[in-house]
Amino acid sequence: MTSSLDPDRLLPVDPETRAVARDLYGAVAEAPILSPHGHVPADLLLENRPFGDPAELFVGRDHYVTRLLHARGVSMTELGAGGSADPRRVWRTLADHWDAFAGTASAYWLRDELATVFDITDELEPSSADRIYDRISARLEEPAFRPRALFERFRIEVLATTDDPLDDLAAHAALRADTSFTGRVLPTFRPDRYLDPDAPGFAESVARLLEATGAPETFAGYLDALQQRRGHFLAQGAVSLDVGVTEPWTVDLGAAEAARLFDGVRRGAASPADRRSFRGHMLLQMARMSVEDGLVMTLHAGVLRNHSSRTFEAFGPDTGHDIPVATEYTRGLRPLLERYGLEPGFHLILFAVDETVYSRELAPLAGFYPSVYVGAPWWFLDAPDAMQRWRSAVTETAGFLRTSGFIDDTRAFLSIPARHDAARRADAAFLARYVREGRIGMAAAERIAHDLVDAVPRAAFKL
Amino acid sequence: MTSSLDPDRLLPVDPETRAVARDLYGAVAEAPILSPHGHVPADLLLENRPFGDPAELFVGRDHYVTRLLHARGVSMTELGAGGSADPRRVWRTLADHWDAFAGTASAYWLRDELATVFDITDELEPSSADRIYDRISARLEEPAFRPRALFERFRIEVLATTDDPLDDLAAHAALRADTSFTGRVLPTFRPDRYLDPDAPGFAESVARLLEATGAPETFAGYLDALQQRRGHFLAQGAVSLDVGVTEPWTVDLGAAEAARLFDGVRRGAASPADRRSFRGHMLLQMARMSVEDGLVMTLHAGVLRNHSSRTFEAFGPDTGHDIPVATEYTRGLRPLLERYGLEPGFHLILFAVDETVYSRELAPLAGFYPSVYVGAPWWFLDAPDAMQRWRSAVTETAGFLRTSGFIDDTRAFLSIPARHDAARRADAAFLARYVREGRIGMAAAERIAHDLVDAVPRAAFKL
Amino acid sequence: MTSSLDPDRLLPVDPETRAVARDLYGAVAEAPILSPHGHVPADLLLENRPFGDPAELFVGRDHYVTRLLHARGVSMTELGAGGSADPRRVWRTLADHWDAFAGTASAYWLRDELATVFDITDELEPSSADRIYDRISARLEEPAFRPRALFERFRIEVLATTDDPLDDLAAHAALRADTSFTGRVLPTFRPDRYLDPDAPGFAESVARLLEATGAPETFAGYLDALQQRRGHFLAQGAVSLDVGVTEPWTVDLGAAEAARLFDGVRRGAASPADRRSFRGHMLLQMARMSVEDGLVMTLHAGVLRNHSSRTFEAFGPDTGHDIPVATEYTRGLRPLLERYGLEPGFHLILFAVDETVYSRELAPLAGFYPSVYVGAPWWFLDAPDAMQRWRSAVTETAGFLRTSGFIDDTRAFLSIPARHDAARRADAAFLARYVREGRIGMAAAERIAHDLVDAVPRAAFKL
Repeated sequence: MTSSLDPDRLLPVDPETRAVARDLYGAVAEAPILSPHGHVPADLLLENRPFGDPAELFVGRDHYVTRLLHARGVSMTELGAGGSADPRRVWRTLADHWDAFAGTASAYWLRDELATVFDITDELEPSSADRIYDRISARLEEPAFRPRALFERFRIEVLATTDDPLDDLAAHAALRADTSFTGRVLPTFRPDRYLDPDAPGFAESVARLLEATGAPETFAGYLDALQQRRGHFLAQGAVSLDVGVTEPWTVDLGAAEAARLFDGVRRGAASPADRRSFRGHMLLQMARMSVEDGLVMTLHAGVLRNHSSRTFEAFGPDTGHDIPVATEYTRGLRPLLERYGLEPGFHLILFAVDETVYSRELAPLAGFYPSVYVGAPWWFLDAPDAMQRWRSAVTETAGFLRTSGFIDDTRAFLSIPARHDAARRADAAFLARYVREGRIGMAAAERIAHDLVDAVPRAAFKL
Repeated sequence: MTSSLDPDRLLPVDPETRAVARDLYGAVAEAPILSPHGHVPADLLLENRPFGDPAELFVGRDHYVTRLLHARGVSMTELGAGGSADPRRVWRTLADHWDAFAGTASAYWLRDELATVFDITDELEPSSADRIYDRISARLEEPAFRPRALFERFRIEVLATTDDPLDDLAAHAALRADTSFTGRVLPTFRPDRYLDPDAPGFAESVARLLEATGAPETFAGYLDALQQRRGHFLAQGAVSLDVGVTEPWTVDLGAAEAARLFDGVRRGAASPADRRSFRGHMLLQMARMSVEDGLVMTLHAGVLRNHSSRTFEAFGPDTGHDIPVATEYTRGLRPLLERYGLEPGFHLILFAVDETVYSRELAPLAGFYPSVYVGAPWWFLDAPDAMQRWRSAVTETAGFLRTSGFIDDTRAFLSIPARHDAARRADAAFLARYVREGRIGMAAAERIAHDLVDAVPRAAFKL
Repeated sequence: MTSSLDPDRLLPVDPETRAVARDLYGAVAEAPILSPHGHVPADLLLENRPFGDPAELFVGRDHYVTRLLHARGVSMTELGAGGSADPRRVWRTLADHWDAFAGTASAYWLRDELATVFDITDELEPSSADRIYDRISARLEEPAFRPRALFERFRIEVLATTDDPLDDLAAHAALRADTSFTGRVLPTFRPDRYLDPDAPGFAESVARLLEATGAPETFAGYLDALQQRRGHFLAQGAVSLDVGVTEPWTVDLGAAEAARLFDGVRRGAASPADRRSFRGHMLLQMARMSVEDGLVMTLHAGVLRNHSSRTFEAFGPDTGHDIPVATEYTRGLRPLLERYGLEPGFHLILFAVDETVYSRELAPLAGFYPSVYVGAPWWFLDAPDAMQRWRSAVTETAGFLRTSGFIDDTRAFLSIPARHDAARRADAAFLARYVREGRIGMAAAERIAHDLVDAVPRAAFKL
């Protein structure tokens, strides 16, 4: 069975509203993609090798997909985790369980990718699995399906990677030096393992950081080392750093107390409360450095990582069992905002997986602090219905211009256009409703739709 | 004034979407009812006596109705609680306050029941109250309105009751033995009073349990006794047990510590923290037994029972003042899921009255753990708008197949078809929107609509 | 560019549903305004002076507007806070940043006010700023734009102010005595500063209260003093008191313990826990007094005031950085409701800025306790989309009659009709959907639409 994509997908069902949305979407459908936060590695574009097989591309690397297969009873091992699996069998397994994906964001993206990137409109099902597999495989060998060719075809103007602070960023430098590639690929400073005493190997990470930078083994040296590495990232074009925490809790400590905690956490001798304080204080230190060096600070909060220890031990992190928890920003971020929230040029973008904070905390914060931006719907919430809920919860308090613009946050390079396209459709749908409800004029809606893919992310991320 | 039911009730307002929904609904409207969780007693069907008067049927037993009358200033006593009241006067009281019910789920169900079960389309109001009362009364004396006749007319294929672990389930056995009744009526193991040290009469309940099973007065004996009674339920056809807790919090204890807590809670000497630990550990023990015996474990969490002590003391439990609280599953269930979440064949269905957990916790958990299912909207949330919010919050992360199927959870036998019908309409409405938004093809929507009333509850509840 | 108001603004986009909504709205569009809670001072109407300049009117006094300008980087000083600013420049600043307001409730109200009060339909933008400024200024000098003339033109039947307990309410008395003014202007007792040990100047406030009433310096004297002042308010026509708290937490204390806490908090010697207990107990005392004197008790909970200390110190309170927090009513209000929740005639209206409590706590509480009413959407949530979410979350459990009716809660006198009109449109939109979904008949919807602007607020606020 074939099913071509509905050209009006995600647009409102009411005909007149759909017509308005179609106009709004049409004007931005082909706009260049700004992707200021994601997980595609720079090497992918530097090396420009053909992509692997369809299973690796659409299943193995995508923990949105593997988690739902796992929930259906498919073992991680069958999916190739912790070893290798026959890619064709993995693909067939996906086809066998494809009905479980109906209605999910993953299904939406995959159908879109197959149709728009590979020109495959066959419905995925057991009987079509092999045929689709073969067609994808054949395409992946064509030069037009190499990363750089797709980068151009996708009209990606800016792509941010996410990188370890000790990364030398050689791939980024090489890409910039390569005159045959004209895209902007920016590194992003992701310091979690050096900031969180509960991160695996924290003490070793800090030791490596100090050694690599030649900084003294003191708290001041540690801060210098971090600042130095941020400087390296800035020099290589970085515009932002990204911090991931379970709780967005901050604390403002004196230098002596911070130094005392630093000693404790390095020796593994700190209490849970001290480790929490250290972590919370380092968020504040990251903000301080951003005030100084201008890196936009993005905060992704509210996910309890590796919920299933048995799965983590067998297959490692990012295997589909990171589960959100209730999150509190108003009090938790207050120490940071008391100190830096009014600083000119400071940008703090708040991402959440707990929808309750949208109207209650994020929009009010971004509606007052010039530094605070409401991050686009993230992770589980990066999906069409969730996007409507997000805009509805945020807009009436904070408008459109205090938001971040869409981020795809993905390591699945081929899904980037589908994800941005979904966001553009969702925004067009939202704006069309406001137009039809007499709340925004059509001219304003057109301007906003354009800003949301252009001026808004450029401003929030200082692109 | 009469008002016949709108045949398109609960379907989307957009004409084209409504047409799609009508098709989807039409294909399942007459499908048999699977009711795997509810509170109708088996005796009702065994004895097959005529129902009582309209007031008893629609007011007295329905704390959804009595609570809102109470909120309007009608005393519990007037409604017959704690004694008797003239049923005709109770019914007139309902008619007097019927405008307060407009828009509620209760009003929807009652109108549907009057029209579809009793063929009464007069609007309930003071002037029609007596007439409607008389018509219902007359009908209730007809053989066609006895429980078994209605069971058949309602096309109920499976009906689960909820029973005390010490119940001998004689009614269930007698029903099965009765060749003149062909419906499946299954018991459900509801052990709360034997698990929760804060339940009234807990020590006495445990003593009765041990005595009835001849188990020794030790923690091991207590576990044996529970397992033995589960075995009895299994032998009588049970497919699930149901646990109700205020907080879904679990803890994994060693045998010695558990035994120590058992001694404490039996003697009434345990601290609040120890009582909480015991309760949380027994949830985990129930899961362990389910891994062993295969009973599906359903968890209804988040309601603070008997908020008004004065009302509880005068009129007992289930009198309309159980009030939800914020609920946390991600951390609370982790000890249980760490131990049993990946066990093949284990099913844990999570029901919530705190909507915030739908997208934040339940869908992500059910989207990874093969054991976890997202329970249908429950109690206050078993209503058309709330159902749309639930599907919207759950589907994009967990799809349709990781949910439980509808449960009516009711002791109001006559409302069962209205409730299932409402759920079918709500699902058709949701699916139609996804079809019209180009997210699901019509063939897939038709298959899903059917699965939601058939394969989905059969799989989740092992029917 | 001009843009006249859409006569169908805020009504549903589906044409047939819009037609139903238009009928429902039309029948109440011109109904008198009952404004039982707000912040317009009585002096405004007593003195009946011309309003000031457009900047003062639409920017300076409206922290909804100043906060979003501040978030755009405009300093409080530029906006006239803590001194004076050229009003024309302030107005131009608003025009410069007007695009940031698109989609917000503030933008909706301002456009409505300009069009319906001032007959100005030019779109606000830099090029039109001066022209609009001049037109407003000219109008403000006309007699028809004085407060009393507008009061009549707005068809305000009742307007409640919010007043300090020690206010002599002379303005209210003078207004009542003034035969040339026929509107009802009622005081509201707002005792926060005398109840909350953490309020600035608490001890001094209590001392002034005791001195003013001649009450002894004991806890009993303090309670007497409060009761006496409530009596004064009642004598001047007050129907309600209003309490604002961060957490709606109550505690029932014995007289000796309460007296001990009173001594502690007066001397500034109480611990945080004792201050919390005192505050929580005084909520309960306010309820007790309401049971006795009949004043409706409104509770506005869940906002952390003055998030940015630096802004508070420089510019004072109500400067746009009050930020909501997660709120808990079920357990927090239980001591109060255990004691007074069933008392005949007691009214407790609960307002929230945490949407999660709508379906989880407020609707279930109001669906049982005759004393509890669900307050209309408040503050950040007083906006069209948020209103739909609120009705959707509340109605299926509590119906329409257990709600408060709309409150505008504003100090912006000119925005009162726009706000009430938006609420009427939102309710018509909601009801129209229920009509079209076959859940409410048209006659019932018409009655409810009318009740929501008339019988409902009259009942809840005892008008």
